Amino acid sequence: MKGTVLYAPSDVSFEKRPEPKIIKPTDAIVRISVTCVCGSDLWPYRGANPITEPTPMGHEYCGIVEEVGSAVKTVRPGQFVIGSFATSDNSCPHCQYGYQSSCEHREWISTAQAPRLRVPLADGTLVATPEVPSDELLPSLLTLSDVMCTGHHAAVSAGVRPGSVVAVVGDGAVGLSAVLASSRLGAERIIALSRNPVRQELAREFGATCILAERGEAASQAVLELTGGVGVDAALECVGTGESVATAFAIARPGSTVGIVGVPHDVQVPFESAFFRNIGWRGGAAPARVYIPELIDDVLDGRINPGRVLDYETDLEGIADAYAAMDERRAIKSLVRVGTC
Amino acid sequence: MKGTVLYAPSDVSFEKRPEPKIIKPTDAIVRISVTCVCGSDLWPYRGANPITEPTPMGHEYCGIVEEVGSAVKTVRPGQFVIGSFATSDNSCPHCQYGYQSSCEHREWISTAQAPRLRVPLADGTLVATPEVPSDELLPSLLTLSDVMCTGHHAAVSAGVRPGSVVAVVGDGAVGLSAVLASSRLGAERIIALSRNPVRQELAREFGATCILAERGEAASQAVLELTGGVGVDAALECVGTGESVATAFAIARPGSTVGIVGVPHDVQVPFESAFFRNIGWRGGAAPARVYIPELIDDVLDGRINPGRVLDYETDLEGIADAYAAMDERRAIKSLVRVGTC
Repeated sequence: MKGTVLYAPSDVSFEKRPEPKIIKPTDAIVRISVTCVCGSDLWPYRGANPITEPTPMGHEYCGIVEEVGSAVKTVRPGQFVIGSFATSDNSCPHCQYGYQSSCEHREWISTAQAPRLRVPLADGTLVATPEVPSDELLPSLLTLSDVMCTGHHAAVSAGVRPGSVVAVVGDGAVGLSAVLASSRLGAERIIALSRNPVRQELAREFGATCILAERGEAASQAVLELTGGVGVDAALECVGTGESVATAFAIARPGSTVGIVGVPHDVQVPFESAFFRNIGWRGGAAPARVYIPELIDDVLDGRINPGRVLDYETDLEGIADAYAAMDERRAIKSLVRVGTC
Repeated sequence: MKGTVLYAPSDVSFEKRPEPKIIKPTDAIVRISVTCVCGSDLWPYRGANPITEPTPMGHEYCGIVEEVGSAVKTVRPGQFVIGSFATSDNSCPHCQYGYQSSCEHREWISTAQAPRLRVPLADGTLVATPEVPSDELLPSLLTLSDVMCTGHHAAVSAGVRPGSVVAVVGDGAVGLSAVLASSRLGAERIIALSRNPVRQELAREFGATCILAERGEAASQAVLELTGGVGVDAALECVGTGESVATAFAIARPGSTVGIVGVPHDVQVPFESAFFRNIGWRGGAAPARVYIPELIDDVLDGRINPGRVLDYETDLEGIADAYAAMDERRAIKSLVRVGTC
């Protein structure tokens, strides 16, 4: 089998890799239908995270179960499954508390940009669809593996509910998913921060009621002006930089909770000013395994189409350009069709 | 009139001050029955906050309304009132959102350690009792002005509910109030961190089910051991130092929200580790004006007795020792009876 390996910044290879095998009785082997490149994959790709050794890549996936270990009970070969980017046993105290992404036995999926994938803790990690879906549904189903659930987590963490006034910081795939999630949860106003026409357009399609092209201080001022100086009920931070976090806290109204899902890189939260403004924060790595069953019917029934964030398409042989397209902002997010590779 | 003025660290004076007068039609003048010294008063008293000029002191108070401005509608002379430490108009967007402590027209009360006090925005700040209460209820009613509401805010911010496993970091008056508030909200287990026998005793009286004398890393380890390595559902931070905040985050279970009410002094929250453990935070300055009506019946009916934190008593002439007693930890919190001064 061949799989994706990152050697150094901008150096992505699709090369021979060991065939995945059942190792534990709770494992499953999934034949990948589609995978994609995550915004978080760009951190090492851009050299912002160190790469200490050749690193297999990929954690967003869906496909057909090929084989299961002897202890697997809820998924079976032939089923189409969507899996979380983090494995979970669905039974430990953290899972029972609803935070599968903090499972005591969590492993990060990291070899999904390949034709086949070993998924540990298959029962607690994979969610099967009622039947094998049609090809056109694959992109949206794939987003439930991470990006759409992560946007949803930002909205849930910030308490978005019917009537909420929301602002989304970040126009990447996660930010756009957060717009869609907020709209789905009934937000009345959704302010999207974006200066990219393609992303602005998709934000509107996803439910944004207002687009602001400003950044930093100017963005904060603009959001405050739009809200009569009050700030938003729910500021959703979907980037992970110091500036985006600062903007999210600056535009949050007193008493609100900032939803932070951007994987942080050298971020200091403005704790003391937030304390005195009574602004809190929730977020982290989305418990996708909890959200997939919540969101899957909306995808299958066509009520939401989060796969629209995947605006570039290739196959595994083209994986290097899938990264480059996102790095160069030619793509919001790159879909990789695997099929019968 | 005489009032309390802080001149320099450890230099508290009770001296001639201007008589408070109605300045705006929304003001009231309150004849103070009891006031007290706040843990936050000790920051400047100990030199941790700079004192740039002689500073009148005191923000916890209850007493009899003596006079009201022409626009005041809901309180009238002769009524006994409890007021929040922060004034609020009860009508601005932040007040309507439930965060009176972030009122657009907020002023911090700061001259309450005196016989009489001007309270701006009287309608939105003061809460009257049905009748003038008996003397023995005064300490507990007084705590609703700040400390009990602040402990309650820690519990509410962290989402304490029936069955919760709670840990309270800090055995000062706020921490002890947080124990009581957690018990009142139905927590099943309440772990109090304290090494002071008097405070341990009161924590137990308030509902703590377990006392830990450890601090720092050792405290975190002990709490994790008590919770099977999981951490607590609700960690309540009631100190405001870097160590106490670090402890609160370390003992919080994944997916939980730390309640932080200790006024922070050079605190950095461990944001990235909290993010990866899915731990959030809420808190800040308690919206006491919201909580007073919630808590007042429990005090009047004797179901809670938060005034037990006031274990030292003096009058205004003894105000300097009221500070010293707390500074030297002879007192948990100092009550100052004013009466007809």
